[in-house]
Parts: sequence; C-alpha cells; structure tokens
Amino acid sequence: MAPIRRLVLDVLKPHDPSVVTFTTQLGDLEGLDAVTATVVEVDENVKTLRVTIEGENLDLETIRTEIEDLSASIHSIDQVACGSRTVGDPWVDS
Amino acid sequence: MAPIRRLVLDVLKPHDPSVVTFTTQLGDLEGLDAVTATVVEVDENVKTLRVTIEGENLDLETIRTEIEDLSASIHSIDQVACGSRTVGDPWVDS
Amino acid sequence: MAPIRRLVLDVLKPHDPSVVTFTTQLGDLEGLDAVTATVVEVDENVKTLRVTIEGENLDLETIRTEIEDLSASIHSIDQVACGSRTVGDPWVDS
Amino acid sequence: MAPIRRLVLDVLKPHDPSVVTFTTQLGDLEGLDAVTATVVEVDENVKTLRVTIEGENLDLETIRTEIEDLSASIHSIDQVACGSRTVGDPWVDS
Amino acid sequence: MAPIRRLVLDVLKPHDPSVVTFTTQLGDLEGLDAVTATVVEVDENVKTLRVTIEGENLDLETIRTEIEDLSASIHSIDQVACGSRTVGDPWVDS
Amino acid sequence: MAPIRRLVLDVLKPHDPSVVTFTTQLGDLEGLDAVTATVVEVDENVKTLRVTIEGENLDLETIRTEIEDLSASIHSIDQVACGSRTVGDPWVDS
Amino acid sequence: MAPIRRLVLDVLKPHDPSVVTFTTQLGDLEGLDAVTATVVEVDENVKTLRVTIEGENLDLETIRTEIEDLSASIHSIDQVACGSRTVGDPWVDS
Repeated sequence: MAPIRRLVLDVLKPHDPSVVTFTTQLGDLEGLDAVTATVVEVDENVKTLRVTIEGENLDLETIRTEIEDLSASIHSIDQVACGSRTVGDPWVDS
Repeated sequence: MAPIRRLVLDVLKPHDPSVVTFTTQLGDLEGLDAVTATVVEVDENVKTLRVTIEGENLDLETIRTEIEDLSASIHSIDQVACGSRTVGDPWVDS
Repeated sequence: MAPIRRLVLDVLKPHDPSVVTFTTQLGDLEGLDAVTATVVEVDENVKTLRVTIEGENLDLETIRTEIEDLSASIHSIDQVACGSRTVGDPWVDS
Repeated sequence: MAPIRRLVLDVLKPHDPSVVTFTTQLGDLEGLDAVTATVVEVDENVKTLRVTIEGENLDLETIRTEIEDLSASIHSIDQVACGSRTVGDPWVDS
Repeated sequence: MAPIRRLVLDVLKPHDPSVVTFTTQLGDLEGLDAVTATVVEVDENVKTLRVTIEGENLDLETIRTEIEDLSASIHSIDQVACGSRTVGDPWVDS
Repeated sequence: MAPIRRLVLDVLKPHDPSVVTFTTQLGDLEGLDAVTATVVEVDENVKTLRVTIEGENLDLETIRTEIEDLSASIHSIDQVACGSRTVGDPWVDS
Repeated sequence: MAPIRRLVLDVLKPHDPSVVTFTTQLGDLEGLDAVTATVVEVDENVKTLRVTIEGENLDLETIRTEIEDLSASIHSIDQVACGSRTVGDPWVDS
C-alpha cells in the first residue's frame, strides 16, 4: 500500500499525561519525523488535540496503540496524505 | 486527451473501511503520485471526504472503480486540472 | 493583438458530459498549457464551473466552439490576462 | 516624470466589444507588458472591469484613448505605481 | 537621524490634478525609488489616497511640499519605516 | 524521547517582572534558540502571554521552573512540536 | 541575558513631535536596525502607534528613555522576541 506521509488526528486525552509527555512519547515511535500537537479545546476531564504527524511511512495502528498506551484515544482522523510526495488540500493548505 | 494532473473529489464513505485504509489503498493505484483525504463532515453512517489526487496522467474511471471497491462513492467532483502543467484557481489557491 | 495568457470563464454545463470529460477534452485543444475547472454550484440540470485556462496564445473562439461542442456554454468571462507576461489582480491573486 | 509601472483602473464597458477583445486590443498598445481584466460587476448595459496594467513606462492618455476607442470609459483609477521599481500597498498586496 | 525607508501617507487630493499626475510628479522627486497610490475613498470634492513611498533616505518635508504644490495635503501618516533595512508590522504585512 | 523543537505556551504573569525581563530571562536558558512572547490579554493583576519557544531539544520542566522563578505560571500549553524536524499545523501555520 | 531581536510596542504620542520625527529619532539609537511605526488610533490629543523594532541586541530602557525624551510613552508591550534567531508567533506571523 502507498506509504502514509502525513496524518492529522483529533485526539482526546485526559489531563494526565501532559501534552508534552504525550507528544514526545508519540514522537519517539520509529518512523515519525515530526509530530505537532495543537490544543484545540479544554474540557473538565479531557483535552482535544489536533495532532499532525509526518514521516516516510507512517503506521496508524502503531500510532493508535501508542496513543492508547498514553491513556488517550483517536476521536477522529482529519486528514491522511500518502504517496511518493505530499499534496496539500487546496481549500486548507494553500 | 490532455492528461489529468489533479482531481479534487467529494467522496462519501461508510465508516468501514477507515479513512486510512481508504487513502492508502487508493494511493496504491498505479499513476497516483499523491493522495490527501481531508474529512469535512461526519454523519451517522457516512463520512464526507475531500480527496485531492495528483499524478502525471490520472484516470478517473480506475479511481472511481477503486473508490467503489472500497465501498465508497464519488458524490461530486470539486476540481479537475489537466495539461502539461497545473494552474491554480486564482480565487482558491492563490 | 496581444496574446491571451490566462482566461477565467464561468461555464454552465449539463451533467453530461462529466466535468472530467469536459476538462480533458478542453485541455486537448492545441495551445492550452493548463486547464483547471472548479465546480462552484450544482443545480438540478446544470453545473457552474469556474474554468481557468493558461497558454501562450489562447484563442477564445476556438475555446468557445469546443465548450459548445461539449454541450456547455460560457455564461460569463471572469478574467482575461494578456501580454508578454501575466500580472495578477492585486485584490484577488496577491 | 517618474515612469508609471502599474495602473489599476475601474472601467465601464458596454457588452460589446467583449472583455476578451477589449483586453487584447488594449494589450496591443506599445509599452504594455501585461494587462489583466477582472469582471467585478455585470449590469444590464455595462460591465465593470478592474483592469491591472503593467509596463516599463505607461502612458495613461494613450491608454484612455484606446479604452474610449473601444467604447468603454475609465470610471475611476484604483491604484497608480511608479518609480524605478514597484512597491505594493502593505494593506492590499502583502 | 535614521534614514526613512518607507512612508505610508493618507492624502486628501482635489479631483484635479488626477491621481496619475499626482503620483508621477511625486515619484519624480529625487530619492524616491517607488510610489504607489491606492484610492481608498472618493467624495464629492476630494479623493483619499493611501500613498506608499519607498526610497533610501526619504525626506518628509520635501514630500509634503511637493504634495501641497500638487494642491493636495497629507491628512495623516499611517506608517513610517526607517533604519538600515525595513521591517514589516507583524499584524499587517506578514 | 523525541526532542521538543517548539513549544507554544499560555502564560499568566503578574505585571512585575515586565514582559521584557520575563522573555530575556527565559531566553537565557540553555538550549533555547528563540523565544517570542506576544501579549494577548491584560487584566488588572496579570497579563496573558502566548510564548513561542524554539530549540533543538527543549525541556519543559526547566522552562516551567524558570517561568515560576519569574513569578509567572504556565496556564496551558497551546502547541508542542517534536521530531527531527518541525511540521506546522495545516489549519494554523499554512 | 538573551539578546532582544524584536520589540513590538504600543506607544502613546502627543501630536508633537510628528510620527516621522519620532520614528527617525528613535531609529537613530545605536543598535536599532529597523523601526516601523504604524498609526493605529488617533484621538484628540494623542496618537497610538504600534512600533516594531528589530536589532541584534535591543535595550528596552534605552528605547524607553528615548521614547520619553520624545514626549511619548510606552503604553504596553505587544511582543518581545529574543534568542540567537527570531521565531514568529504561529497565530500572528505565519
């Protein structure tokens, strides 16, 4: 299958672990070149993060397992980019 | 006919297969350089994706067949770019 | 007369032929380097497309004839650029 | 006087000649490197165009005469840029 | 004193002289590299122009005198940039 | 763990020390390449700053301790980027 | 302490001295590479300026003294950037 180059995930995370621990642990997975977590909503018990991940060949299941090991969960997937290069969405990235 | 360089498709997809499976399978088609799927709406039974595809010479019918093999359907086509190079729409991409 | 480098056309097209057939046929005309069709409105019987065309020396009448051969019609012209190079509109393209 | 490098004109044009004829005829004037006409309003009898013209040393009176020969008129001047180079307006072009 | 590199002026100008005459005469002053006048409001007797001027070492008083010789007046100064290089305002130019 | 390349923090700071002292002291920490503090809200007793920090391998706890030594506190974390390079959030940085 | 690379200040200035005198005098301070003053509000007796200053190692107190010598005052500080390079705020400068 075509290699995944970028994933943008909507993640629900309890307040513990912190977003820093969450992001650096996630970024420690093999094959991830860059991870950026932006906090988009803070509720009483959870934070909603938009997590942008880039790599040469991302594996969602490894990423999901890691996210769940970090007590968080993928609420939804906002964007998936794959192929020999990455194309932006003209309505979002231009 | 002029080669298609970019397609932006509005795709309706049931929750299964996932957007990741959908995108990587689609990206596996020969001749596709890059595929980016952005989730734009989530309903009870379907997700609406805006799918941006780039390649040297895209074939819509092969893409449509693959999308349908993945249990999804092309709801509408948002943009088609063809020629020896790609020009953006001044009102969208500038 | 100064060569036309870019045309942005508002085109009304019945649902058949499809926007892909329409765009690739149009892009097959001699002298067109790039054609991008963006669907801006969908009505019961017609689609409204904004069609951006670039080339070294575009001929509107050849383009209009081709568009009409494809059962569509030019509803209006949104932008025309000509000269030895192309200048953007500061209020739109900047 | 300092050479005019860019003019942005608000032009009222009857439906005949067409915006393509208008733009290519205008672009045929000596000294014009690039002309881009964007249709901004369509009324019963006239179209309003925003016409962006660039060149090394534009002459408004020659341009005005040509516009009037084409049955159109300059309704107003939106922007004039002159000098040994062109500077954009920070509130519009940045 | 630090050399002025860019001035953005709000200028009130009667309808005569025209914005083209105004801009080219102003651009003819020694030391002005580029002048761009954008019309931002048209009233019965006056036009309001936003005039962007760049040069290596602009002199406001020379510019003001020239503007007044052209029957216009500086209503206000919107931006002044000086130094060995020009920095944009992060809230406007970025 | 993956090195943190960028942190965007929401910081509450009493009026003393000033934002300049706060930023330069913070920027003096080893390993910080760049710190930018933008004031986003001013209340009677506190200022809210959005603090963007970049470095090769940022340590949040060292940064937090320094912020608290400066009488301020991290109210929330807006963004964390880590990896061998930095990826922007397509919905914010593009 | 880390060198200050950029300051964005909210400055209240009486109508005299003018914004040009104010900016050029300020820009004349040693160590300032570039100063840009944008007028953001004009009241009866004062003007509010957003003043962007860049340099290799800015000293706020020298700048404040100069601003006060020019009969103006720093109303608030909008942004401070320091370090071996400058990072923009992703929510403002991107």
